[in-house]
Amino acid sequence: MRLATLDASAQPGKRDGMLVVVSPDGGHFAPAPVKTLQEALDNWAAVAPRLAAIGDFPQPLDPARLAAPLPRAWQWLDGSAFACHGELMDKVLGVVPEKSDRPLMYQGVSSHFYGPHDDVRFPGEEFGIDFEGEFGVIVDAVPMGTSAAEAMAHIRLIVQINDWSLRKLAGPEMKTGFGWVQAKPPCSMAPFAVTPDELGSVWADGRVCADLLVDWNGRRFGAANGAPMGHGFHELVAHAAATRDLVAGTVIGSGTVSNPNYREIGSSCIAERRGIEIVDHGAPRTDFMAFGDTVRMEGRLPDGRSPFGVIEQKVVKA
Amino acid sequence: MRLATLDASAQPGKRDGMLVVVSPDGGHFAPAPVKTLQEALDNWAAVAPRLAAIGDFPQPLDPARLAAPLPRAWQWLDGSAFACHGELMDKVLGVVPEKSDRPLMYQGVSSHFYGPHDDVRFPGEEFGIDFEGEFGVIVDAVPMGTSAAEAMAHIRLIVQINDWSLRKLAGPEMKTGFGWVQAKPPCSMAPFAVTPDELGSVWADGRVCADLLVDWNGRRFGAANGAPMGHGFHELVAHAAATRDLVAGTVIGSGTVSNPNYREIGSSCIAERRGIEIVDHGAPRTDFMAFGDTVRMEGRLPDGRSPFGVIEQKVVKA
Repeated sequence: MRLATLDASAQPGKRDGMLVVVSPDGGHFAPAPVKTLQEALDNWAAVAPRLAAIGDFPQPLDPARLAAPLPRAWQWLDGSAFACHGELMDKVLGVVPEKSDRPLMYQGVSSHFYGPHDDVRFPGEEFGIDFEGEFGVIVDAVPMGTSAAEAMAHIRLIVQINDWSLRKLAGPEMKTGFGWVQAKPPCSMAPFAVTPDELGSVWADGRVCADLLVDWNGRRFGAANGAPMGHGFHELVAHAAATRDLVAGTVIGSGTVSNPNYREIGSSCIAERRGIEIVDHGAPRTDFMAFGDTVRMEGRLPDGRSPFGVIEQKVVKA
Repeated sequence: MRLATLDASAQPGKRDGMLVVVSPDGGHFAPAPVKTLQEALDNWAAVAPRLAAIGDFPQPLDPARLAAPLPRAWQWLDGSAFACHGELMDKVLGVVPEKSDRPLMYQGVSSHFYGPHDDVRFPGEEFGIDFEGEFGVIVDAVPMGTSAAEAMAHIRLIVQINDWSLRKLAGPEMKTGFGWVQAKPPCSMAPFAVTPDELGSVWADGRVCADLLVDWNGRRFGAANGAPMGHGFHELVAHAAATRDLVAGTVIGSGTVSNPNYREIGSSCIAERRGIEIVDHGAPRTDFMAFGDTVRMEGRLPDGRSPFGVIEQKVVKA
């Protein structure tokens, strides 16, 4: 099952948009029997079968009308589960945090997720504007103390995310020990939130084993695969739920998708390429984004399908 | 004007409770003309005058029926604006972050704030359960790039908060550079959210210059004053809004209220006292909280009034 949200933010009180069920070919939709994705997640066991039973998709889907599938969430917790990404980031940010076997995670802004075609607003180019291609999951209510094994069943939907970052602010914020606030503006989501069964064997051991194709200004920049996460999403969910109940609709991210053969396949963020350049040449050569730049991201399955649809956005001055 | 929220969480779809306007003596209330505090904040300019016009408070207020004034928020950003608190915490947590003139801030869980009399659930005593007495503000919508001077007018309500912390998890999370997730379970709020004018001259330069009386298991533990914040709340709001729009209903905290004469007046959290003991005796002598312990917090004005009401809670096993 694939779900999307029609943007209705121009109407008062409609910031959560209008939930729709999307046809298998992604070209049509049917209105959902509940208003919003949050409402569906609040009562998933009862609502999901009603959504899945829809087989007639009468209306053509215009991608330009889509908001993020979850336009806002009560909680967004982002991991950093790809080890080779972390090693390069230490070089770029000039911060080498203490390493451990525990998942890395911070809480970010969740009161707004950009839709897949929205222009993305930043206060200035001088802060080092960067994209970060990720996969993410959305859970139903997860009680405090849920184990990783138990957490798997709470993963109801899988999404594709661009975790926008301001790199020049990231290092100084890390050095405070308080983590990121200014360095992490709102994220973007690809059009479709999908149930795990949509991915078949690509959803394995709590990992999205799909390629994430990233194009910057129309040129391929990266094509890393989601398989080599050091911790699966179920482990990230359990980590997040260790000392708090997770509200239904909590979004949990993988961190930048990255593979050890990054020199061949490229990267899902600019900072990582700059890290490679520091290793290879002693200094970075690739600049961060400029206003007017575009980024396109598409998760692609081995059979060629794009279950999450495409993020295609332009960076603009706020 | 003082606002409170009646707990209605037992009813489906009523997690935001029912907004009421509270009488000057705190003993009675009138139902508000909008359902929830979030709804009021979403349209504050139009709603606030209607709330302020209420002068008849027909119903007796039972403190046991109260939720947090904002039972959940789209965003909670907590500062650490009292310098003498930070210096002691460095000793307790074994982490000495890089110092700067910029505000310290992290984003915490906002999907639930405990009501003032709720039992507070933790997974175990071994994590170092601690209270943190704070003041906080609630803003209406703040556009990205708002200056500190402009931010003052966006501060619509002032609240009193207990930012519950698990100290044994705090140091290791700081060392990752990602900040706190497990170390910061949900906070509690005192019964009443008040407009700045309620505080008179006690609201000065973006600071709540009131004493925060903290009692642990019935004994006075601290009575620090909110005046000596290194950055005022308007500066914290501007810091938070530097790279993101702040959604209406964003809550921003002061961090633990602390005064340089902490040896005389005590502390607003246990960790700070442990820091003093480390300085004075080489090791901490005061244990963290045990299940069954209680904490009481009350902001008190020079004229004896308690504008925020009283937090009085027990710590229990989840």
